[in-house]
Amino acid sequence: MVIVMEHNATSEQVEHVVDKLVEKGFDVHRSTGVDYTVLGAVGAKIVSTRDFAAMSGVREAHRISEPYKLASRAFHPEGSRVRIGDVEFGGDEVVIMAGPCTIESEAQCEEVAAGVAEAGARVMRGGAFKPRTSPYSFQGHGEKGLRIIRKAADRHGLLVISEVMESAQIPLAHDYIDIIQIGTRNMQNYNLLRDIGKSGIPALLKRGMSATITDLLLASEYIMAEGNHNVLLCERGIRTFENLTRNTLDLSAVPVVKQISHLPIIVDPSHAVAIRNRVAPLSQAAVAVGADGLLIEVHQDPENALCDGAQSLYVSQFSELMDSMRRIAQAVGKNIAEPTLA
Amino acid sequence: MVIVMEHNATSEQVEHVVDKLVEKGFDVHRSTGVDYTVLGAVGAKIVSTRDFAAMSGVREAHRISEPYKLASRAFHPEGSRVRIGDVEFGGDEVVIMAGPCTIESEAQCEEVAAGVAEAGARVMRGGAFKPRTSPYSFQGHGEKGLRIIRKAADRHGLLVISEVMESAQIPLAHDYIDIIQIGTRNMQNYNLLRDIGKSGIPALLKRGMSATITDLLLASEYIMAEGNHNVLLCERGIRTFENLTRNTLDLSAVPVVKQISHLPIIVDPSHAVAIRNRVAPLSQAAVAVGADGLLIEVHQDPENALCDGAQSLYVSQFSELMDSMRRIAQAVGKNIAEPTLA
Amino acid sequence: MVIVMEHNATSEQVEHVVDKLVEKGFDVHRSTGVDYTVLGAVGAKIVSTRDFAAMSGVREAHRISEPYKLASRAFHPEGSRVRIGDVEFGGDEVVIMAGPCTIESEAQCEEVAAGVAEAGARVMRGGAFKPRTSPYSFQGHGEKGLRIIRKAADRHGLLVISEVMESAQIPLAHDYIDIIQIGTRNMQNYNLLRDIGKSGIPALLKRGMSATITDLLLASEYIMAEGNHNVLLCERGIRTFENLTRNTLDLSAVPVVKQISHLPIIVDPSHAVAIRNRVAPLSQAAVAVGADGLLIEVHQDPENALCDGAQSLYVSQFSELMDSMRRIAQAVGKNIAEPTLA
Amino acid sequence: MVIVMEHNATSEQVEHVVDKLVEKGFDVHRSTGVDYTVLGAVGAKIVSTRDFAAMSGVREAHRISEPYKLASRAFHPEGSRVRIGDVEFGGDEVVIMAGPCTIESEAQCEEVAAGVAEAGARVMRGGAFKPRTSPYSFQGHGEKGLRIIRKAADRHGLLVISEVMESAQIPLAHDYIDIIQIGTRNMQNYNLLRDIGKSGIPALLKRGMSATITDLLLASEYIMAEGNHNVLLCERGIRTFENLTRNTLDLSAVPVVKQISHLPIIVDPSHAVAIRNRVAPLSQAAVAVGADGLLIEVHQDPENALCDGAQSLYVSQFSELMDSMRRIAQAVGKNIAEPTLA
Repeated sequence: MVIVMEHNATSEQVEHVVDKLVEKGFDVHRSTGVDYTVLGAVGAKIVSTRDFAAMSGVREAHRISEPYKLASRAFHPEGSRVRIGDVEFGGDEVVIMAGPCTIESEAQCEEVAAGVAEAGARVMRGGAFKPRTSPYSFQGHGEKGLRIIRKAADRHGLLVISEVMESAQIPLAHDYIDIIQIGTRNMQNYNLLRDIGKSGIPALLKRGMSATITDLLLASEYIMAEGNHNVLLCERGIRTFENLTRNTLDLSAVPVVKQISHLPIIVDPSHAVAIRNRVAPLSQAAVAVGADGLLIEVHQDPENALCDGAQSLYVSQFSELMDSMRRIAQAVGKNIAEPTLA
Repeated sequence: MVIVMEHNATSEQVEHVVDKLVEKGFDVHRSTGVDYTVLGAVGAKIVSTRDFAAMSGVREAHRISEPYKLASRAFHPEGSRVRIGDVEFGGDEVVIMAGPCTIESEAQCEEVAAGVAEAGARVMRGGAFKPRTSPYSFQGHGEKGLRIIRKAADRHGLLVISEVMESAQIPLAHDYIDIIQIGTRNMQNYNLLRDIGKSGIPALLKRGMSATITDLLLASEYIMAEGNHNVLLCERGIRTFENLTRNTLDLSAVPVVKQISHLPIIVDPSHAVAIRNRVAPLSQAAVAVGADGLLIEVHQDPENALCDGAQSLYVSQFSELMDSMRRIAQAVGKNIAEPTLA
Repeated sequence: MVIVMEHNATSEQVEHVVDKLVEKGFDVHRSTGVDYTVLGAVGAKIVSTRDFAAMSGVREAHRISEPYKLASRAFHPEGSRVRIGDVEFGGDEVVIMAGPCTIESEAQCEEVAAGVAEAGARVMRGGAFKPRTSPYSFQGHGEKGLRIIRKAADRHGLLVISEVMESAQIPLAHDYIDIIQIGTRNMQNYNLLRDIGKSGIPALLKRGMSATITDLLLASEYIMAEGNHNVLLCERGIRTFENLTRNTLDLSAVPVVKQISHLPIIVDPSHAVAIRNRVAPLSQAAVAVGADGLLIEVHQDPENALCDGAQSLYVSQFSELMDSMRRIAQAVGKNIAEPTLA
Repeated sequence: MVIVMEHNATSEQVEHVVDKLVEKGFDVHRSTGVDYTVLGAVGAKIVSTRDFAAMSGVREAHRISEPYKLASRAFHPEGSRVRIGDVEFGGDEVVIMAGPCTIESEAQCEEVAAGVAEAGARVMRGGAFKPRTSPYSFQGHGEKGLRIIRKAADRHGLLVISEVMESAQIPLAHDYIDIIQIGTRNMQNYNLLRDIGKSGIPALLKRGMSATITDLLLASEYIMAEGNHNVLLCERGIRTFENLTRNTLDLSAVPVVKQISHLPIIVDPSHAVAIRNRVAPLSQAAVAVGADGLLIEVHQDPENALCDGAQSLYVSQFSELMDSMRRIAQAVGKNIAEPTLA
């Protein structure tokens, strides 16, 4: 931490801050300039800069190390690879996850699973528990839905990713899910994060609508602190003043995360752009910017989808998009992860 | 809902949209202009405007009624009064809730309770379960903390407000808490909202950091839909680009909520401004803008607080602030709710 | 400036940064910790932290002094008072400025001037040059308008504040205007700022829609650097994701500016809330939070106003608001500036 | 426009709104539902929805046509191609513009011009008039700088793009500049926009830091309304709460603009990401998302650049980036515009 004292801070005030720092276990280095005295506090502990910023005579306090540890690239410089089944995230292959917003029926899941597997997806997405902004919207089929998606995915060699909304649903995840999705609204539901950490099940953690990248890494720390290091981060759009898109997809987050964290970073373009014909260009951009995977909504009959039909691709559109993503991946020295032959 | 067709939409496209609207139970009125055809859909059902916006030939779809019902002032024009013990929110009295960020010890709680009761607060705040951005921060004393705050509050004739982070903690709320606080990060934790709705315990629902006012009202609907209408809304700052404050306190939310909802609206200035000497001016402003209550952090020894010391008022500062808030309340034709004599 | 080196920075990289700092005129203090080496650079010069952040081996660079000087409270601790005619901003009196969005006619200006003067305003506002988002909106009456407002204001003992949009209009300001208003969209129009600085005419500088408070102070520095220290800052709402208000009025900016700058800070509630019945509560809040003045839109016939009628108060509403603001000012130990008797 | 009346609006209130609409030249269609009466107003005129929203009995007013005309794709469905010299924007070729933030010297310009031309850029960028947030930063070499960049560009077959900050600089643009850059801070400097419109010189209009896409199109309308249709729009990052990047590059703006406007859309990744090693991934993403061109900062010696060195690419990095952009352009069915052989 670096503490800048006020222009007119008294020496008593400076001493008081130094004492407090030493008490907290820091080594303190003092620099006295014409205008300001600066204290450099070096130590292992994470403390609140605001508590120091509020002390009398203090002008500003800056953190000089990240507030997270396990998620930091500083201590795991080469980048993590997260292997789930025969799929690996974080290497030279871009993993495509696709499927409907919500699991509606066996016929639907079979049709989508067949379509996306044929096109080259490795993981099937589909929601059984749906967090909806309105209590009057459809809330998902629960366990019955999970059973359906599991069967459809198995028939086509796909892994399953699905959202878990509360700790009580984690046992179901053990039975049916390969990757637990933690939704935007639950990014800071700390009890849930801890319990998923304890479960050991791989997790995809979506960035909160108003979470900074630092917040996202701190949230991932809750999972990893319980010993579960199979964490995928996911950029899905942040809230801004722009209103022609639902959220603003922050693709800069991909190179930033690559630089400061070792965890794989996935992009979900569907929720941010919210309108079908914008999903393909943003998916292409996500591959070009270096994402380790994508999460894309695909539906066999979007006009009659129970939820998010407007942003779901037709199966045929998804198949075309896979082709253009393959070309782009190659253009940047990577590959789309392809199904292994049986 | 109002649907605007594209300039060059075909009559087949228009018919297709009309059919879909009728199928969903709407009466449809069509207006044909030089440039655009506009469809007005009138009906009771809440549907996704985006699903219509994505149909071919459609240019835009606007909702014309609010997406919430029970929270709307349209159907409860005179404003709700929420009575808890002998305290009433939503009338001509402004209710002050005060106390430490976190419950630390019996001695602390007693000292703060005595101080804030003496100054005129009616409700004591204090956290036993703390949602912390970092897993390495102090996470609260749990049930032991609740027992401490309950006793201290009772000794001084105060009600207790405290945060509940997951459904499993609700039974404890029945034992120790008068008002459940639902934190910013849980505003869209729908399972928790529903379970608090079922509990019947009065709830203060904090606006999410990036939640619009409409989102806040939709979230309150989850609680009320279970039959619990004792809901207090709480403005506590939203996330913006400004970085000299932690969050931007949106005081405009107070008159806006008063206009569109019947629920009382509380202001928490402490978390947004984050620095002690800014709490008093913003508290004064909250009374002047018409808030039904305030939630203020007060600590007997802020420099050594376990959390949020930087933004906690000294007891003596709080007492002075109470006086200026009394004068402002009178200036706008209201009163600060005062303790009733035993 | 404080520079934190990467965990694995080489000693050559550290030396290279030190050399660069010394070359730029800084004294450098080095602190070596277990994880990080930290360099404290103390000196008078303002340099770009980003240039250092991009050097190899550097992890972060933080500025430790403000990037502005003349606007800083550090070097003018007691707060500036800006006297214009017989009105003083920055003391114990809150100055109310009121009038129509745009100058429409002699009859209109006379009626509004009479009404707001009678109610107790000291300055009349009214636009002759209008920056409109759309080129198809009314753009103002120009010099003719200025002549009209000057006469109406003089008849009622009011000063005149009006917007200037380009340097070529400054000579007109000399003839007709007491306070030049610099609009939100021109906050970073540096040529205009400099020319207004050279003119010596007092200026009210509106915060840009997406300007941080630091940006606002930097912009004021352009005016003051030319020798014109008669600068009033103005908070008028910032852009956020909330869409039930046009902008989010950031009242926290008032205590923040008071703390870091010596310049008076004015609040314009009308443009942010955009709807008439929200102007009064926010005006009251602005007085309670400590604003040095307010800028309020008032119109004699808002339903037929040429612009911004929706947010303009009726003269009678303004008069009532003046009364409640008087009571609030007294509640916080201040007064509304009242007209001096002739 | 669509106007929704309050639940309890009286028939007098409805009639009053209808009369006002008819008076403004609209045809009005009325739909009466159980809860709300809805008025559809169809007509050519652009009016303020807020003025209607503020009328008594009115609940909401929505615009149903865009507030801009000349920039709308509705009336120019096939997309505009802007030809400048032998370079065309808006077709199947992606035009790369590159060069230093600021023009420093003849030697510098020659070295950069040679490097970027060799790598395949078609347009050279470089600032002679610099809008700087701080008045203490370097402000540019003015006309001398323009003369230098013109010569260097001519020697290497490049066009010149450079910023103009005020109308008085437009005559210099006639002499030295092929494309006038209108900076972020001047996006709503309406006098400047009009004068550039009158000049007929092609213009690149940068999106304001807090401008919606609709605002950007409205601003372009100021230029086109004067008869100058050679307008390029430019996405360069918007202000959000994220603080690990300077601005948030909004790549979704590219497909959105393509859908609602016919104007070419350019991406400037350098200013948003602010750090050199993030420029290449975002540039690749911009090509993949469908941008018509890019504006990239390149410097022959970034560590010693007078401004923005931290975000400037080395010439050799730019050359490699050109290769990867060529591959991505082909992957999405386009090409990078290549120099024509002499």
